[in-house]
Amino acid sequence: MSILIVGSVALDSVKTPHGEAKEILGGAAVYSSYSASFFSPVRLVGVVGKDFPPRYLTLLRKKGVNLEGLEVEEGKTFRWKGFYNHNLGCAHTLDTQLNVFASFHPQIPPKYKKSKYLFLANIDPKLQLEVLEQVEKPELTIADTMNYWIKNSLKALLKVFKKVDLALLNEEEAKQLFKATSSRSKESDYPISKVAKKILSLGPQRVIIKKGEHGSLMFTNKSVFSAPAFPIKKIIDPTGAGDSFAGGLIGYLSKASDPGEENLRKGIIYGSVLASFNLEDFSLNRLKRLKLKEIRERYKEMKRMVTF
Amino acid sequence: MSILIVGSVALDSVKTPHGEAKEILGGAAVYSSYSASFFSPVRLVGVVGKDFPPRYLTLLRKKGVNLEGLEVEEGKTFRWKGFYNHNLGCAHTLDTQLNVFASFHPQIPPKYKKSKYLFLANIDPKLQLEVLEQVEKPELTIADTMNYWIKNSLKALLKVFKKVDLALLNEEEAKQLFKATSSRSKESDYPISKVAKKILSLGPQRVIIKKGEHGSLMFTNKSVFSAPAFPIKKIIDPTGAGDSFAGGLIGYLSKASDPGEENLRKGIIYGSVLASFNLEDFSLNRLKRLKLKEIRERYKEMKRMVTF
Repeated sequence: MSILIVGSVALDSVKTPHGEAKEILGGAAVYSSYSASFFSPVRLVGVVGKDFPPRYLTLLRKKGVNLEGLEVEEGKTFRWKGFYNHNLGCAHTLDTQLNVFASFHPQIPPKYKKSKYLFLANIDPKLQLEVLEQVEKPELTIADTMNYWIKNSLKALLKVFKKVDLALLNEEEAKQLFKATSSRSKESDYPISKVAKKILSLGPQRVIIKKGEHGSLMFTNKSVFSAPAFPIKKIIDPTGAGDSFAGGLIGYLSKASDPGEENLRKGIIYGSVLASFNLEDFSLNRLKRLKLKEIRERYKEMKRMVTF
Repeated sequence: MSILIVGSVALDSVKTPHGEAKEILGGAAVYSSYSASFFSPVRLVGVVGKDFPPRYLTLLRKKGVNLEGLEVEEGKTFRWKGFYNHNLGCAHTLDTQLNVFASFHPQIPPKYKKSKYLFLANIDPKLQLEVLEQVEKPELTIADTMNYWIKNSLKALLKVFKKVDLALLNEEEAKQLFKATSSRSKESDYPISKVAKKILSLGPQRVIIKKGEHGSLMFTNKSVFSAPAFPIKKIIDPTGAGDSFAGGLIGYLSKASDPGEENLRKGIIYGSVLASFNLEDFSLNRLKRLKLKEIRERYKEMKRMVTF
């Protein structure tokens, strides 16, 4: 089934305790599209500048990512520069140059409008709303966001959340959103189940809370699913792990072509597997040499990890 | 099968965002013994002062905890005073009065010496060694510890770890022990699997790393088991959660009378269940009214939580 992914395409400069890489392929739409492409063809909507290296386009196309919806604008590609210190869970931004992304308004090509699976990667919720207005009722819509939008664009974000099936947040963002939308300003504590319940009350039928090395939780009003993180030996670069997770999830769902609880759970495990591989190198370097067989093996290992 | 638990019996004064309780029954040996008693009879070795309320002894005895090894000494019972702020994961100690615990040397009654399952709760590793010298080859020995001993009594602790089957640590303690025993002083990062491998190299065949609300991980050199935490709605008092976990684990193992991988995994889930109930009230208040049926239900819920 068809997957539509809308989000950033970037050139990243990243420093981690294990090395440094400059002007490498990045962006939420790139990580998620590439990961999803292990399972299903993907349509990507985003924008790059004229300076965007053509070899990156080739890389995506060869993997099965349709780039008809990728605008190439006069100017420079979106750039992000950041570093991770020993606490690899937290990215520190050194510089963000929006460039062509500053005036971006997603245009969904006509043939993309009936896509069955939609991933709204982390961008301005106003742009996410523009996408939602253009598409025709996907079977499943997943929306990601980040702390910046919760703080600065809450109203638009809440409109997005009213319209999507599944909200994807990391733990800090989930708690931040909980606090921003709870009437009692001083909550003495907030167990994650309470946070999840609050987010579900904002609209989505499901919320997935990503906890990095602690795995993830999916909540509905009736169920909880807990997935571990795959315990890899060495994290080289955490950039794009969350987007690889989302890509693996929506990729598997599209392949299974039924976004029910059972497939969502499997999809979360595939997402965790993709994220774990992505951590093992900079940019898409690990995913580029990743084989489906390795994905399947790690999936089985994760099954053994939780069986009792 | 017989369980022997050696550790502290205390009177705690605790303040949490949900309330305050003074001079309540506490201590690692109490929480773990009471939890284990849901599955198997327990023998407790510890010390209290003459001021220890007899009703607490009655409570433990009625649950199936044999107190022949509990010394009653002239003087006052060990007291701990602490509080938890909004981050319920971290206890802040306000006052510790060792009292009769200061001169405690565990004396294992002759009929306890052949106990098959031994839990060395968190006490001075020198005392843990004294216990190990007195018992006759248990089928399974589990040792807990804390940051204080890793910092101040590492040599004795390493001797303990050489002699036990299973080390039980929380995540911070595990990382602290990793750093204290690694030759490279500046590790740039330490994924938990690396930390676990290091601890296994110190002696125990297994290590369980407790991660609070993020569940727990059990490592051997060949396998990893990941258990979620049960997502309770409201945490009233975190005191004793780790010890309830250990009690549920060793209690189930003793009942199953085979400490193999399969039962250890089930035991970890039962431990997580006991810990989750313990969080719901001060002292043993929740465990006192807990029914085996509730334990079984939550166990099943945890199975549903991880199934994919």
